[in-house]
Amino acid sequence: MLEELKKRVYEANILLPKHGLVTFTWGNVSEIDRNSNLFVIKPSGVEYEKLTPEMMVVVDMDGNVVEGDLKPSSDMPTHLELYKAFEKIGGVVHTHSTYATSWAQSGRGIPCYGTTHADYIYGPVPCAPCLSKKEIEEDYEKNTGLLIVKEFKNYDYEAVPAVLCKNHGPFTWGKDALEAVHNAVVLEEVAKMALFTEQINKNVLPAPQFLQDKHYHRKHGENAYYGQD
Amino acid sequence: MLEELKKRVYEANILLPKHGLVTFTWGNVSEIDRNSNLFVIKPSGVEYEKLTPEMMVVVDMDGNVVEGDLKPSSDMPTHLELYKAFEKIGGVVHTHSTYATSWAQSGRGIPCYGTTHADYIYGPVPCAPCLSKKEIEEDYEKNTGLLIVKEFKNYDYEAVPAVLCKNHGPFTWGKDALEAVHNAVVLEEVAKMALFTEQINKNVLPAPQFLQDKHYHRKHGENAYYGQD
Amino acid sequence: MLEELKKRVYEANILLPKHGLVTFTWGNVSEIDRNSNLFVIKPSGVEYEKLTPEMMVVVDMDGNVVEGDLKPSSDMPTHLELYKAFEKIGGVVHTHSTYATSWAQSGRGIPCYGTTHADYIYGPVPCAPCLSKKEIEEDYEKNTGLLIVKEFKNYDYEAVPAVLCKNHGPFTWGKDALEAVHNAVVLEEVAKMALFTEQINKNVLPAPQFLQDKHYHRKHGENAYYGQD
Amino acid sequence: MLEELKKRVYEANILLPKHGLVTFTWGNVSEIDRNSNLFVIKPSGVEYEKLTPEMMVVVDMDGNVVEGDLKPSSDMPTHLELYKAFEKIGGVVHTHSTYATSWAQSGRGIPCYGTTHADYIYGPVPCAPCLSKKEIEEDYEKNTGLLIVKEFKNYDYEAVPAVLCKNHGPFTWGKDALEAVHNAVVLEEVAKMALFTEQINKNVLPAPQFLQDKHYHRKHGENAYYGQD
Repeated sequence: MLEELKKRVYEANILLPKHGLVTFTWGNVSEIDRNSNLFVIKPSGVEYEKLTPEMMVVVDMDGNVVEGDLKPSSDMPTHLELYKAFEKIGGVVHTHSTYATSWAQSGRGIPCYGTTHADYIYGPVPCAPCLSKKEIEEDYEKNTGLLIVKEFKNYDYEAVPAVLCKNHGPFTWGKDALEAVHNAVVLEEVAKMALFTEQINKNVLPAPQFLQDKHYHRKHGENAYYGQD
Repeated sequence: MLEELKKRVYEANILLPKHGLVTFTWGNVSEIDRNSNLFVIKPSGVEYEKLTPEMMVVVDMDGNVVEGDLKPSSDMPTHLELYKAFEKIGGVVHTHSTYATSWAQSGRGIPCYGTTHADYIYGPVPCAPCLSKKEIEEDYEKNTGLLIVKEFKNYDYEAVPAVLCKNHGPFTWGKDALEAVHNAVVLEEVAKMALFTEQINKNVLPAPQFLQDKHYHRKHGENAYYGQD
Repeated sequence: MLEELKKRVYEANILLPKHGLVTFTWGNVSEIDRNSNLFVIKPSGVEYEKLTPEMMVVVDMDGNVVEGDLKPSSDMPTHLELYKAFEKIGGVVHTHSTYATSWAQSGRGIPCYGTTHADYIYGPVPCAPCLSKKEIEEDYEKNTGLLIVKEFKNYDYEAVPAVLCKNHGPFTWGKDALEAVHNAVVLEEVAKMALFTEQINKNVLPAPQFLQDKHYHRKHGENAYYGQD
Repeated sequence: MLEELKKRVYEANILLPKHGLVTFTWGNVSEIDRNSNLFVIKPSGVEYEKLTPEMMVVVDMDGNVVEGDLKPSSDMPTHLELYKAFEKIGGVVHTHSTYATSWAQSGRGIPCYGTTHADYIYGPVPCAPCLSKKEIEEDYEKNTGLLIVKEFKNYDYEAVPAVLCKNHGPFTWGKDALEAVHNAVVLEEVAKMALFTEQINKNVLPAPQFLQDKHYHRKHGENAYYGQD
């Protein structure tokens, strides 16, 4: 069942250590099949070196495991809420990548300081606040998903494919698992450069909006002209 | 004698350079066999590239070498005191890893700024003060161990498997050598992110206690649900 | 047509990821044949791992593709303006390398703090201001080139083979593609060290002019004596 | 002539890129044969990937090339002055390694913040001031050597095997080329950690002198007990 998807999700997971985004097991990737309404996710706590496509776990939209011998990632309920609310996304990634997590720990969103950021993310990357004690104790991972969805009442999830969760770390998404991983790499690089940018000039301002617009629309939408499509 | 343990300690030592935690010979790992009350430790000053399982040194609880042609790590008496005082630990690691050592040099403990830290270490990583001139001159390495033990009158060594020694560097421990190395990797990553976190927001506060509790207990204790066990 | 040049430009492009200057497709190299007035440039949005010499695109001085099945880099019109205005250069590079881009995002030029910088770049690396909304909307990439040329009314492009574009990133050039890549590596290292230099001493001043002169002329001009030529 | 030494110097040079201390050709290693009063040094401007033992250049104590087809490193006269003044050293290294060079550019010596530093270098690493315009124009590389020697009127060159030259970069030395390279690696790591240490605690003080003494003498002198000797 969904053998092709399990292979894709496996390969997307393997990209995380390749891009230096994870230490040990600190990350997970999933992708959804919108026809069957099932999604495939990494098993919990399994080292990337030991991972195989067969270990991937298939989950339905109620969070039930419908195939697989292992428990899904403990962050599975967060992925689930994102798939429910963000109907056009197909893949979700969570990591503890160094710089994006440092911004999350600091409680600040990442301002758009240049075109590297604007090429992929429209405006700042928001930082969702910490859950309350009650929300954490009742249903931590599900409420993390709901919190992100609530945060995105003010953002377009297609134009801003990334969020920071305060004191925790980043989630990214995309049309499939591969694009979500791609955005996780972009986010980490953007987070790193934003820190250095502020260190070089502590009074720095975000890039002008018209420059942000130009770069975002050079790559996205009907007038895009970057790449070969 | 203890051939299996020597192999394990050798392999744990080899993980230090693999994870980028040591330059030259600046680190050592040991593991204890609680039945025989003997522990195995890296020989002093031997390069990791030249290390073999046969070179490992077996030491008893009085600090006497009971097997091995080489001198044990000069930090052996520190390991010994930790094994004596912390009865449930099975492995100890010392490194000069870049970021953890920088915190130690600064004389500050590492606040818990997020879930990466809270997943492994309950509350801040303490920084033990410098020994006195007298303590250093009389029995430096043994007194370093005693100082750490004294520092942990205020901490639970099972929940806080790491310490910084001021102007020196970190020690970590765990149920065996492998877990102690694992904690050394975690500590270095946590130390790095804590520095960046403070640079991004100089007024940052530690993560809320209830979030720290949630993440620590998600991975530890009888209600843990992370991973496959 | 220009098979030899396409191979050279391919190889120069491949050096960018080798030197850690690009993530994904964020960079491009070109080289011009001054006899035929044609230049060869990387195709737009193609991953470096999939790049072949045959994919390189040949462009004339009006910006028309005269050979190649793929679209040229979207930054092609910037390269074109540099070739038109800087008659003695033969190669151009654009990257989003981490530290140089961070300086560009901060809107500051890079002061010459030492001989590493002075060996290759005479005086500070200028930071060109952001284009206006009108300039961006009308002809972004061409106007970026014209802006750089305008900025260099105050600089000697042969002695200063690099520029930062505010909120965007660096361009470098040289007598051929290989030298332009070489200068991109130098710029990144110089940008990194300049940040650290200011962090170590926030009141630091640029290197004395006579030291800058010595190092620059040790490597450039008729009295150069560095290397084997 | 001196074939064995040329091989050793070649191998020591090759260690510089292996340890990440050089970009392109920005470094050089030499070693002296005190019997013949000849020293062997890297040729100027040759890439490390293309270097062979046969390319090494043999120089006498007047700075004359007595064997070799290539020009010696342009920094050869600096090495020469160090060999003349520091009679017990056998090897010299110059690099532009990132963190040590950043301290040199900042014009500050590196305080001893911990035992990593104290294990190898007794007290702070001094930063020699910039040469005067006249000294630079008359005989730059020789005067750099004389400046270092003058700086060491206040230091013991055996206990402090490293110096920073303001606005330029580090030189290190040792009993042979290999030890000089070893000290270059130590210096870079110590420089990196000193920067982070000051960032973590801007009011940090150097390590207590008695701790510095303990660690230095644990590894050096007749009462040393670190390692297997």
